[in-house]
Amino acid sequence: MPKLAYLGPEGTFTEEALRILAPEADRLPSANVSAALDAARRGEADGAVVPLENSLEGAITTTLDELAWGDPLLITAELLLPVEFSLLVRKNTTMAQIKRVFTHPAAITQCRGFTARELPDAMVIAAPSTAAAAQEVALPGSPYDAAIAARIAGEHYGLVELAANIGDRADTVTRFVRVSRPGSMPEPTGSDRTSLVAFLNDDHPGALLEMLTEFSVRGVNLTRIESRPTGDGIGRYFFHFDFEGHVADARVGEALSGLHRICTDVRFLGSYPRADRFFPQIKRGMADADFAEAEGWLARIRGGQA
Amino acid sequence: MPKLAYLGPEGTFTEEALRILAPEADRLPSANVSAALDAARRGEADGAVVPLENSLEGAITTTLDELAWGDPLLITAELLLPVEFSLLVRKNTTMAQIKRVFTHPAAITQCRGFTARELPDAMVIAAPSTAAAAQEVALPGSPYDAAIAARIAGEHYGLVELAANIGDRADTVTRFVRVSRPGSMPEPTGSDRTSLVAFLNDDHPGALLEMLTEFSVRGVNLTRIESRPTGDGIGRYFFHFDFEGHVADARVGEALSGLHRICTDVRFLGSYPRADRFFPQIKRGMADADFAEAEGWLARIRGGQA
Amino acid sequence: MPKLAYLGPEGTFTEEALRILAPEADRLPSANVSAALDAARRGEADGAVVPLENSLEGAITTTLDELAWGDPLLITAELLLPVEFSLLVRKNTTMAQIKRVFTHPAAITQCRGFTARELPDAMVIAAPSTAAAAQEVALPGSPYDAAIAARIAGEHYGLVELAANIGDRADTVTRFVRVSRPGSMPEPTGSDRTSLVAFLNDDHPGALLEMLTEFSVRGVNLTRIESRPTGDGIGRYFFHFDFEGHVADARVGEALSGLHRICTDVRFLGSYPRADRFFPQIKRGMADADFAEAEGWLARIRGGQA
Amino acid sequence: MPKLAYLGPEGTFTEEALRILAPEADRLPSANVSAALDAARRGEADGAVVPLENSLEGAITTTLDELAWGDPLLITAELLLPVEFSLLVRKNTTMAQIKRVFTHPAAITQCRGFTARELPDAMVIAAPSTAAAAQEVALPGSPYDAAIAARIAGEHYGLVELAANIGDRADTVTRFVRVSRPGSMPEPTGSDRTSLVAFLNDDHPGALLEMLTEFSVRGVNLTRIESRPTGDGIGRYFFHFDFEGHVADARVGEALSGLHRICTDVRFLGSYPRADRFFPQIKRGMADADFAEAEGWLARIRGGQA
Repeated sequence: MPKLAYLGPEGTFTEEALRILAPEADRLPSANVSAALDAARRGEADGAVVPLENSLEGAITTTLDELAWGDPLLITAELLLPVEFSLLVRKNTTMAQIKRVFTHPAAITQCRGFTARELPDAMVIAAPSTAAAAQEVALPGSPYDAAIAARIAGEHYGLVELAANIGDRADTVTRFVRVSRPGSMPEPTGSDRTSLVAFLNDDHPGALLEMLTEFSVRGVNLTRIESRPTGDGIGRYFFHFDFEGHVADARVGEALSGLHRICTDVRFLGSYPRADRFFPQIKRGMADADFAEAEGWLARIRGGQA
Repeated sequence: MPKLAYLGPEGTFTEEALRILAPEADRLPSANVSAALDAARRGEADGAVVPLENSLEGAITTTLDELAWGDPLLITAELLLPVEFSLLVRKNTTMAQIKRVFTHPAAITQCRGFTARELPDAMVIAAPSTAAAAQEVALPGSPYDAAIAARIAGEHYGLVELAANIGDRADTVTRFVRVSRPGSMPEPTGSDRTSLVAFLNDDHPGALLEMLTEFSVRGVNLTRIESRPTGDGIGRYFFHFDFEGHVADARVGEALSGLHRICTDVRFLGSYPRADRFFPQIKRGMADADFAEAEGWLARIRGGQA
Repeated sequence: MPKLAYLGPEGTFTEEALRILAPEADRLPSANVSAALDAARRGEADGAVVPLENSLEGAITTTLDELAWGDPLLITAELLLPVEFSLLVRKNTTMAQIKRVFTHPAAITQCRGFTARELPDAMVIAAPSTAAAAQEVALPGSPYDAAIAARIAGEHYGLVELAANIGDRADTVTRFVRVSRPGSMPEPTGSDRTSLVAFLNDDHPGALLEMLTEFSVRGVNLTRIESRPTGDGIGRYFFHFDFEGHVADARVGEALSGLHRICTDVRFLGSYPRADRFFPQIKRGMADADFAEAEGWLARIRGGQA
Repeated sequence: MPKLAYLGPEGTFTEEALRILAPEADRLPSANVSAALDAARRGEADGAVVPLENSLEGAITTTLDELAWGDPLLITAELLLPVEFSLLVRKNTTMAQIKRVFTHPAAITQCRGFTARELPDAMVIAAPSTAAAAQEVALPGSPYDAAIAARIAGEHYGLVELAANIGDRADTVTRFVRVSRPGSMPEPTGSDRTSLVAFLNDDHPGALLEMLTEFSVRGVNLTRIESRPTGDGIGRYFFHFDFEGHVADARVGEALSGLHRICTDVRFLGSYPRADRFFPQIKRGMADADFAEAEGWLARIRGGQA
């Protein structure tokens, strides 16, 4: 039974993601993303589950930077988890009694409509995480009357769900990934995603265009691009890419090799099944069979045939 | 005398930036980036100064999203400010007495080397901002012994600088921008930057490559690209671009028009002098004179000449 | 009534093309393409009709080079003429009597199947043109028994058509153009073609790709590209381009300006209605209205609006 | 001792080229380019020497089309031969006696300055080839007084060189190639050229740009591009490409494979040493060692390493 570290404490959305990704796993809550990933790196856990991006807030930059700079880890699975906030209170608390609401700043932003409408007179105070907010509210003497958090947090800390799905947008989603130490990789499924980090030789004009051309010329579609500072001054960036396909696919392999040749460094972050089960149309000439056929032809002409 | 809102409270790096960008201005501290920008939008201030990106932490996403979605504002100036952290204490506090350090999480990260080396036994606690940390430490009964903050914060709140420039990297820089309500714009200087936000018609494969080609074909070099979620689900992004040149430059104008034609929406965020005073080499054929000459030629051939 | 020079003598396919392009015109046969174009240049004729390319033989390089290097002329119309060869004889000649066939080398090639099958024992001799062959055969004491030429040549020189449409491929077509001295141009019709010649600043790697990108980025589709030697040594070429659209179209105008800026010289060869009446789909964002809208937007942001 | 067919008769520039390319070879003059290539195909000769392009006249389309459509042959060498025309006469003929000059039409064009200046009253008559003109003039009862041809033709047919190097441009050059039946290929030298023919899947807009991108993305520079009609109507072309490098080079091999995948058909026409001995700079990341290094890296990440 694998043990997986995750962004804790108990009751976070990350725990919810972990329970779906690996229902059978032992769970090791960690204080933050770095700690969860370090647990996986050091072997205290067999892997970790961390958030990568949110459809409202964008990239979780800590995760991006940890995957780029820390000891290597490979993404082996992803999950798209709807972010459904619940209003959680101690037993017997009523709406009218709520004066102080405790929650994570992102939740403050995302539930602004609900709190303005239903709790116009309540103060909303920032907590380090939604789960921590629930944990705090669960304490008998807490100065807070309610937490906004995942339902799972209420279950953990014995709170009552007074209102469900209170976010302003019903369709907010967070993308979580499961990572492991290098050594193995999921098999290709035809609906895969590959992630990597690319560092430029130098930041010459057109370098980004060149990188994108390495993908497009092999019919490999990008699904995400993030620039991150290298730390060497404003104007110096490296790039996170997600794209369609598996490193075992011929077109992906050639694109990666091409990128590797024009970059200072490319860090492979894994190939894994897509959470959305989307099977992309492969562009004409870009299937494995097309590459194999072209290789055979090349071998023949290199042998002096016409 | 203009009045400029800024990310407060008094003593922030943003105040330091504002003092350099507009030494003569009246200063209006605001609770957060949104509030500072709103003060400018509503006319409570003549403009605002806010951080845009940091060479270690990356983009200030609140600023990016405010400029993209809020009522329009134009960037009229930028500043690159070295981030120099100071260890600030109440008068008579010695290093040995420091048990609890209060500061912003970014400063916790960036001064980890110093605290580990010089204050190995101290606890470091997260504050909402470095200036707020200094403000708190300045209170006589504060539970904290020291703040890590800008020197200016010490001056504001009457603290003593026990150590200067304690960041792990000496070269950390934050880029600040001054924004105003639309209506006027700095003149071209030959060393200018232009910022904009582009929303895609649809997120088809290759759309990003198409956008970059609109720039490259006119010899316009990008200096920054950031993707941000549109809020409509994972995989849906819009883009912030910074690039060389001024909207009054022919090549920049044509690139912007081209981008406008292939995007759902392009929001212009301003053209302004570069903080680094770098004068880029204009690619052959891309100077204003080249555009004017080509326009003349086009008019002639449209008139039936060969 | 206009007078048009053409590649003579009477009875050529070019005369046939001229009769269709300008039924009412006076016709001035010229000894060769250069002479026909010179007649137009010097005002001896109001224009000229010359062949530009053939679907089997390719470009008529004399025409290409004359249009590129000679005094400027503008193409004002094009025609696609099926090339239908006839076997022409003097009255009373029978198939069995044909021992020597006279015709242009291109016709020798293109009628090889017919002559092998129907005239296996006849000699086929090269003539300067198909019309000249017919002219020769029409002489009473001619050593040749038959000519392969256009039916119109038989009519001119009083020959009998013994067999019609004897080419190996029924679908061979020659493209003819009508040219005039600069000064006016056909109006856009929505189904137009534009021709030009582009000389490179230098023949650096990627120059051709850059030129093609000037077209593609404005959604202008090429229909023909020919490289021709500049005369300055092997490896030095200039290029003929035909593409969809009219110079009056915004997208075409901008593409031409772009090309003009990156080339040493661009010679405009005219915009004229397509012979095939094909109305191309205009790529999204590339219609005149899109350009006008973008221009308006650019003017607004240059005026300081966001 | 190999036997090589060539474009005859004896005394052509092609013979001169053959003598330089293969001094030791037996020579088999052929009536035309097709006959020379057929002799090589059928084994009557071990190979053939034919002209490919001329710096004034452009491509020799017969050669291009034969290489594209006939039974496959591979180019194994190339030669750049200065085209130096001589005025050749029978013994004792003086300039003043020359009334009729016989030569190939290309020579008529290229020596126009000389004939206008030195022989203003002479007629210049078109011959099938310069060597044939010399052959004819050598006949005692010839109606022609002089031939313009290669000096070698004078040697062959016993004519006297009355004037040397009489072309208008001193730098005219013809590129000849030696071809053989497939089966072997010259080794890479670092200064190589590769030739091929590419047929498009369909003639969609942008297809040419896609083909060029296959080269440019691997840093392979084109040195020549020719479009030729497929025969299937105006607007349907296939392409001849010459480019830097040898098919054994990794970057060339990958570019060829890429082209093969996006085209209906690619016919390889050979890799051979450049006549100009130019050693091109290999673009960063495109040397064989870079490809090998990238392949090794790809193998490692496919094996589950990061």
